[in-house]
Amino acid sequence: MRKIHVIGIGAGDPDHLTLQAVKALRGTEVFFLLDKGEATSDLVRLRRDVLGAHLPEGTYRTVEALDPERDRPARGADYRPAVGAWRGARARVVERLIAEELGEDGTGAFLVWGDPALYDSTLGVLEEVLERGAVAFAYDVVPGVSSVSCLAARHRTGLSRVARPVQITTGRRLAEGLPEGVDDVVVMLDAHQTFQRYAGTGEEIDIYWGAYLGTPDEILVSGPLAETAPRIVEVRAQARERKGWIMDTYLLRRRPRDSAERDAHERGAPGRGAPGPG
Amino acid sequence: MRKIHVIGIGAGDPDHLTLQAVKALRGTEVFFLLDKGEATSDLVRLRRDVLGAHLPEGTYRTVEALDPERDRPARGADYRPAVGAWRGARARVVERLIAEELGEDGTGAFLVWGDPALYDSTLGVLEEVLERGAVAFAYDVVPGVSSVSCLAARHRTGLSRVARPVQITTGRRLAEGLPEGVDDVVVMLDAHQTFQRYAGTGEEIDIYWGAYLGTPDEILVSGPLAETAPRIVEVRAQARERKGWIMDTYLLRRRPRDSAERDAHERGAPGRGAPGPG
Ligand SMILES: C[S@@+](CC[C@H](N)C(=O)[O-])C[C@H]1O[C@@H](n2cnc3c(N)ncnc32)[C@H](O)[C@@H]1O
Ligand SMILES: C[S@@+](CC[C@H](N)C(=O)[O-])C[C@H]1O[C@@H](n2cnc3c(N)ncnc32)[C@H](O)[C@@H]1O
Repeated sequence: MRKIHVIGIGAGDPDHLTLQAVKALRGTEVFFLLDKGEATSDLVRLRRDVLGAHLPEGTYRTVEALDPERDRPARGADYRPAVGAWRGARARVVERLIAEELGEDGTGAFLVWGDPALYDSTLGVLEEVLERGAVAFAYDVVPGVSSVSCLAARHRTGLSRVARPVQITTGRRLAEGLPEGVDDVVVMLDAHQTFQRYAGTGEEIDIYWGAYLGTPDEILVSGPLAETAPRIVEVRAQARERKGWIMDTYLLRRRPRDSAERDAHERGAPGRGAPGPG
Repeated sequence: MRKIHVIGIGAGDPDHLTLQAVKALRGTEVFFLLDKGEATSDLVRLRRDVLGAHLPEGTYRTVEALDPERDRPARGADYRPAVGAWRGARARVVERLIAEELGEDGTGAFLVWGDPALYDSTLGVLEEVLERGAVAFAYDVVPGVSSVSCLAARHRTGLSRVARPVQITTGRRLAEGLPEGVDDVVVMLDAHQTFQRYAGTGEEIDIYWGAYLGTPDEILVSGPLAETAPRIVEVRAQARERKGWIMDTYLLRRRPRDSAERDAHERGAPGRGAPGPG
């Protein structure tokens, strides 16, 4: 029976790999790298670097394939149907890779950015390949450090305040409004700096923003949203210009309204200590 | 200047440590272990095992202290003030540990279960110690694999569906209602199996439950909530009886209502493949 590992490799720092991930890498013969084209080929290179850092040369094989282009619907349009079609196309590519590149008892792997459970389609695609029924395999998932955990660690803050929920969402959803009943909101996949919409509302919100987390290009900015938003927009545009692409994520935190909450919040706020040991 | 690492060690499996965590362990002279008393002393032992697995004997020191008892208010009562007082008491214990056990240029560490950003008070306590001003130090945070990532990996499912938010919350909050506008809800810190409240509502919800994740005692149960809830309650009670304590967490997932969502959901649903390679 063919085996597939879906391995979370952390959000950029090769040292974010877990020991379990390293063991899974070492037990893999073929790595499948899906390239989305120019803009993110840096990300494919980063994956190659991860392999190079942890595996002796000549002990493994990589197979690259072009990830089918995803139709990006206009902002505001429902983008699930587009994702469905794209996932189908991707399933056919993955099916062919597994059938052609992996022997009957071979072990292959997909390296997933961050944690495979967050906004990643690999598990869905593998299920779709199995459903198609043309190729059989067993698979398991190796959890990883998400960019969300990485963001919080670099800002030295918690995500959840005492007994409070935290929501992880996308730029698209944030455009529809700040979610109700939750004061800590992590935003991913935001190409439009949607946080700006909440900078002028008078609500007291802090932002903890990070780009290229875990990599040598890492940028961190935090502060009250109203003052900080313009600076982030500027810093982001410059970085994007310089590198040709950007990956960023942020936490929006509503300031607590009553004093008990304020107390709990202040106890959890970061940045008042001396700078970290690095 | 004294240095402190706050190290996320994953949710139970020593192989969930990242390479960065292992390096931080190796750079530490004194480990501070706070013991909450009998019930969780297994957890202190697990931390000792992590140290034993990654560090040569005799190269480090551990200091154990009794974690001040936390007043648990009645269910439904506000529990933030109790947490505030407890955190103050804990800050005094931690201040003393750092001042007395760590030399002026020493490096100490706290090992945090899972990821330090999720429902953990270590960062808040360290900020409080700094604020008190009696002892100075620099600190950094090493992110870890959370029990949430671990839960999703073991069930081989994503947390977030395409373009949808996910909320992480507590048993207490869940008792107030299923959050609006979000169909994927991860629940931690639930001593009362609050999921039962939603088993008879007629809403189509799936549950993915896990206890002792990442440890040899790991238990996984999943299925439609209405049928599965009684089984989880039974399994949980037996396990708790056997070991004397339990740590469990779960994902509640509302079934999609429209067909586009259903499609995206089915693509993301786990468990239809052959069993994982282990
Ligand atoms: C397709 S999602 C994948 C998330 C990934 N599975 C994880 O656990 O982090 C990509 C989004 O994750 C965030 N992201 C991933 N890596 C990042 C990094 N190194 N720095 C900042 N944001 C990152 C960005 O919001 C980006 O738009
Ligand atoms: C105080 S919180 C700490 C969470 C931790 N920082 C993390 O990232 O997982 C403790 C809660 O985490 C969950 N938890 C932690 N470790 C777990 C494990 N190994 N298996 C199941 N649940 C776990 C349980 O819901 C438990 O009540």
